[in-house]
Amino acid sequence: MIIPKLKKIDIALKPSRIEALTDGVFAIAMTLLVLNFDIQEPAERLSTLSLSAELLNLWPHFLHYVISFIILSSFWLSHHYHFHFIKHVDRNLIYLNIFKLMFICFIPFSTSLVGDFPLSLTAALIFEVNMLIAGLLSYWQWGYATKNHRLVEKDLEEHIIAISKQTDLVIPAISAVAIVFSIFLPHWGTRLYILIPLILLFFRKNA
Amino acid sequence: MIIPKLKKIDIALKPSRIEALTDGVFAIAMTLLVLNFDIQEPAERLSTLSLSAELLNLWPHFLHYVISFIILSSFWLSHHYHFHFIKHVDRNLIYLNIFKLMFICFIPFSTSLVGDFPLSLTAALIFEVNMLIAGLLSYWQWGYATKNHRLVEKDLEEHIIAISKQTDLVIPAISAVAIVFSIFLPHWGTRLYILIPLILLFFRKNA
Amino acid sequence: MIIPKLKKIDIALKPSRIEALTDGVFAIAMTLLVLNFDIQEPAERLSTLSLSAELLNLWPHFLHYVISFIILSSFWLSHHYHFHFIKHVDRNLIYLNIFKLMFICFIPFSTSLVGDFPLSLTAALIFEVNMLIAGLLSYWQWGYATKNHRLVEKDLEEHIIAISKQTDLVIPAISAVAIVFSIFLPHWGTRLYILIPLILLFFRKNA
Amino acid sequence: MIIPKLKKIDIALKPSRIEALTDGVFAIAMTLLVLNFDIQEPAERLSTLSLSAELLNLWPHFLHYVISFIILSSFWLSHHYHFHFIKHVDRNLIYLNIFKLMFICFIPFSTSLVGDFPLSLTAALIFEVNMLIAGLLSYWQWGYATKNHRLVEKDLEEHIIAISKQTDLVIPAISAVAIVFSIFLPHWGTRLYILIPLILLFFRKNA
Repeated sequence: MIIPKLKKIDIALKPSRIEALTDGVFAIAMTLLVLNFDIQEPAERLSTLSLSAELLNLWPHFLHYVISFIILSSFWLSHHYHFHFIKHVDRNLIYLNIFKLMFICFIPFSTSLVGDFPLSLTAALIFEVNMLIAGLLSYWQWGYATKNHRLVEKDLEEHIIAISKQTDLVIPAISAVAIVFSIFLPHWGTRLYILIPLILLFFRKNA
Repeated sequence: MIIPKLKKIDIALKPSRIEALTDGVFAIAMTLLVLNFDIQEPAERLSTLSLSAELLNLWPHFLHYVISFIILSSFWLSHHYHFHFIKHVDRNLIYLNIFKLMFICFIPFSTSLVGDFPLSLTAALIFEVNMLIAGLLSYWQWGYATKNHRLVEKDLEEHIIAISKQTDLVIPAISAVAIVFSIFLPHWGTRLYILIPLILLFFRKNA
Repeated sequence: MIIPKLKKIDIALKPSRIEALTDGVFAIAMTLLVLNFDIQEPAERLSTLSLSAELLNLWPHFLHYVISFIILSSFWLSHHYHFHFIKHVDRNLIYLNIFKLMFICFIPFSTSLVGDFPLSLTAALIFEVNMLIAGLLSYWQWGYATKNHRLVEKDLEEHIIAISKQTDLVIPAISAVAIVFSIFLPHWGTRLYILIPLILLFFRKNA
Repeated sequence: MIIPKLKKIDIALKPSRIEALTDGVFAIAMTLLVLNFDIQEPAERLSTLSLSAELLNLWPHFLHYVISFIILSSFWLSHHYHFHFIKHVDRNLIYLNIFKLMFICFIPFSTSLVGDFPLSLTAALIFEVNMLIAGLLSYWQWGYATKNHRLVEKDLEEHIIAISKQTDLVIPAISAVAIVFSIFLPHWGTRLYILIPLILLFFRKNA
């Protein structure tokens, strides 16, 4: 007798606050990426000429700033699309969402690793596994929400569900390829993520 | 004559902004946890091989990243549930909420302490007392809001109020046990918080 | 002909986004305060015993964490009350709000100064002038919004406007006293802000 | 058959979440500016007297704190105005918005550069190009949204569209002048942005 009521409470929760928490986490993760640009020489000892040299040394950081920004944007966009259709949230969905946020919050650190150690396989693998797991959790979350139209509108069309599933697999797929790639060429694996915009564009043209 | 009008103003406040401030604080506290992963050797002096060693040294930090993420999520979830039912806010509730946020904002620091000093009793106690107080304030806030259905709907059922009270005591209870535990085994006390998901799952199955 | 239309646009702006920006800034400023707790000895060189000593050295930081949290909360609460009654925003109000945020964002820095240099008059004055200006801008903003009921409801009662004005002067008044105080006893001036909760309580009892 | 449906989904997206992400990013970028005030001498070695000297050394940082705050506020205000009129968002608009955020998130870094290296042409150019691109993307976004009233209300008047376009060109124009200026006087170029409030005031008087 108590259990159906609890279930009712679960279903009744509005998605707005999990959206607010998620938007906050993404905004901060994106902005914290910039803290990785750390000029280690103190300003007074650094002549203007060597500033340019120092900035060139930061090149792997600039590259991975762009890469992680693309990845974070894709995850955020995916969340935006999911929650456009998700009308109710239950505890499981919230747990999945928070579990995913744990890997989103980790991205500024794994980004700083590949920026600091562009030639390291360890750093590349941490970065890529981070993205792989976050991507799979995103895919799982959408699968959970749309299974039997559990948390979405009953008349949501199957092909919309399918397209979003497909899109959610882009980052896990790139991550899998990048992991294999990194074993042979550590500093090339993480660059594969630059393809994300192209792949999404291709999907859209052919949807 | 003035006082009843002021009371009316108090009651009329919408919960949306205290939710926004709280969501913001939680999102930032979660994301700042990652700043604790600090590789102290400068990148140029660190060979790729020793990066793995350095990362292994960060093990207590990774562990407490997960622990604090679980704790922050639980506090956030509790706030989410409370404010699902709280329809009005008065000054006292806001004060309690802000006072709790003061301990939430402290979590990234106490987490960095137990990560930096995994064997220290002082560090463990600061962490656990931090969680104990934040948890008790959460419990107190819910008690205040539901006393005589002060700020919740008049027909909110007693068993829902009771379940949320029970859930709010999970972290204070673990904290109390962890404090005792830490006196004998400092680096084991804080690990008890990993049990939170299991306990919440148990509660849910038996509700 | 164009100007009245522009005025109409101004008036039509919803307060929700300036609220969102403000809530975000306050949430971050509150959470960044914790970054001031900086243990300067690296963890490996610091024995557990000296951790306690190191934490005691942080005492001025802990004190000013609490003080700045109280101040930030008061400013946020004041904003919350103002915007409960403000129904429209115009450009001037937004400019005033952003100008105030510039001093709110400065608080984590002025807090770190008084924590690092608890005996310094310079540090104390920077902290107190920071709060004085932020407080006066808050007072000014409310005065601007309520002048001839410019941006609030026409039937908003005068005594509500007056009470909020009075409350907004608490922090500027304490700041003025603290500035004089600091000239003689630098490390006591900033402690006066601890009185804020008591003063607000007194106001409320006697409203 | 599938494509028109996809288009319908695109159009149906609500602007509220892109607003939330944007507000979050701006709030954090504004607050992170303060992290640039870094007193490099440890507190214990620094006498009270030399604190004043140290703070005077931070003068370029304080100046650019104010400058970047003005710029960030202008960008935020522009976004606020745009989205007051934008009723729907499509993928392209979101992509443009995120691309712009990538340059907004970069501002705390470029600000720290011109603060650390006030005499460096490289630093000044990075800062000014950063603002130039962010400003042009803002202009482009508004142009895209209002082209044939694509994403705004059909009856939005042309002169409102035109005024906003004009305003959006203020920062790119100042940036272009500042770039030329910096080549001859590196530490004067970035100061031109202080004119923003005056120019906006002039526009408003003469609209």
